[in-house]
Amino acid sequence: MKTMGLEELWLVAPAAFPHAEATALAAGADDLLARARVAGTLAEAVADCGLVLATSARSRTAYYWPALTPREAAPRLLAAGASGSAAVVFGTERTGLTNGDLEYCNGVVHIPANPAFDSLNLAQAVQLLAYELKCATGGPVIGPQRSVPLAPSSELERLKAHLDAVLREVDFTDRHGGPHLARRVARIFGRAELDQHEVNILRGILTAVQARRRRAGSEP
Amino acid sequence: MKTMGLEELWLVAPAAFPHAEATALAAGADDLLARARVAGTLAEAVADCGLVLATSARSRTAYYWPALTPREAAPRLLAAGASGSAAVVFGTERTGLTNGDLEYCNGVVHIPANPAFDSLNLAQAVQLLAYELKCATGGPVIGPQRSVPLAPSSELERLKAHLDAVLREVDFTDRHGGPHLARRVARIFGRAELDQHEVNILRGILTAVQARRRRAGSEP
Repeated sequence: MKTMGLEELWLVAPAAFPHAEATALAAGADDLLARARVAGTLAEAVADCGLVLATSARSRTAYYWPALTPREAAPRLLAAGASGSAAVVFGTERTGLTNGDLEYCNGVVHIPANPAFDSLNLAQAVQLLAYELKCATGGPVIGPQRSVPLAPSSELERLKAHLDAVLREVDFTDRHGGPHLARRVARIFGRAELDQHEVNILRGILTAVQARRRRAGSEP
Repeated sequence: MKTMGLEELWLVAPAAFPHAEATALAAGADDLLARARVAGTLAEAVADCGLVLATSARSRTAYYWPALTPREAAPRLLAAGASGSAAVVFGTERTGLTNGDLEYCNGVVHIPANPAFDSLNLAQAVQLLAYELKCATGGPVIGPQRSVPLAPSSELERLKAHLDAVLREVDFTDRHGGPHLARRVARIFGRAELDQHEVNILRGILTAVQARRRRAGSEP
């Protein structure tokens, strides 16, 4: 990270931090490690981020996320970071990211690799993303041009909770097989990279639906 | 290397090979390590390579080599590799490549990095070059289009030795401060990425110079 000019490291529920071995391995970058922020959950770590991209060795198109290459992802992250915060999320060395982790992400970065041997180390995956961010720095801004900054992840979580509440009120989940479809709708919001105005509009629609139902419920 | 589809590893004068720790760390790529070729010298390792690029954390423009980015280097390496062999040369973790090593190289790859902290690990540097080669695979062929393959490194070494001999014969080194200028001329050949016909032409010129001098020497 430090060789590529990145400075802000977040650790989600680390087994141990600080850790003498990690500090020793960080060598001249131990200042960056010492400043790392620790979060209890991924939701907390990315709460203020407008764009959150997960990394995966496998293509996750089956999970309805657009898979970007690191080269495609870098200018989008820089553009989002210029008007707010953006994050790249890495899983653990052994198990990668869970599907639950991916719920907090707007998209997935898929590192091109040998299909017969695609098990990239965590350190190597971080290096490649950091390198692409370094290469894209100062380059043309690519991706949707936004007049309004992307909504932070925490706002998106509130929108999803609101949606869940409305779906429960209209008995949607019961008739359509549990929370699976609700998650798919939530993923559509993630993929769409909503700005704050758009979140407000969607929240307004949900509130209107609730108000309509409550009025209907109170009518004789 | 294996995650990015590269297969041919050469080790120059390794301290120990095979080594149990290296084999253990290679995990699923131990087959690639087991097939690694060991050479006593860099000259031997790159003898059949038409294009040899060195890697450096520092810009070596002061050494008269053109500094390419990994992204610029990758398609050139693939183009050279398509009609012969090409190599990327990495130095040791601690000391990098010597100026002597660079004599065998046609150019230098400079990995963009944080100027305040550019000490990239060897493993990370290899990863970035391997990644760029993977990304460039199947892409457009960039760089000089050659009808004749690049001359292998061993032919270039013979040309340099021939040049040295001629320069000694004409007392060039004595008058101009030792072998320094001869090395600069040799670097020009390296930088020019000569093909076999061009090497033959230059060797022919050197032979003609020698023959002329010998005839002149035998004249009364």
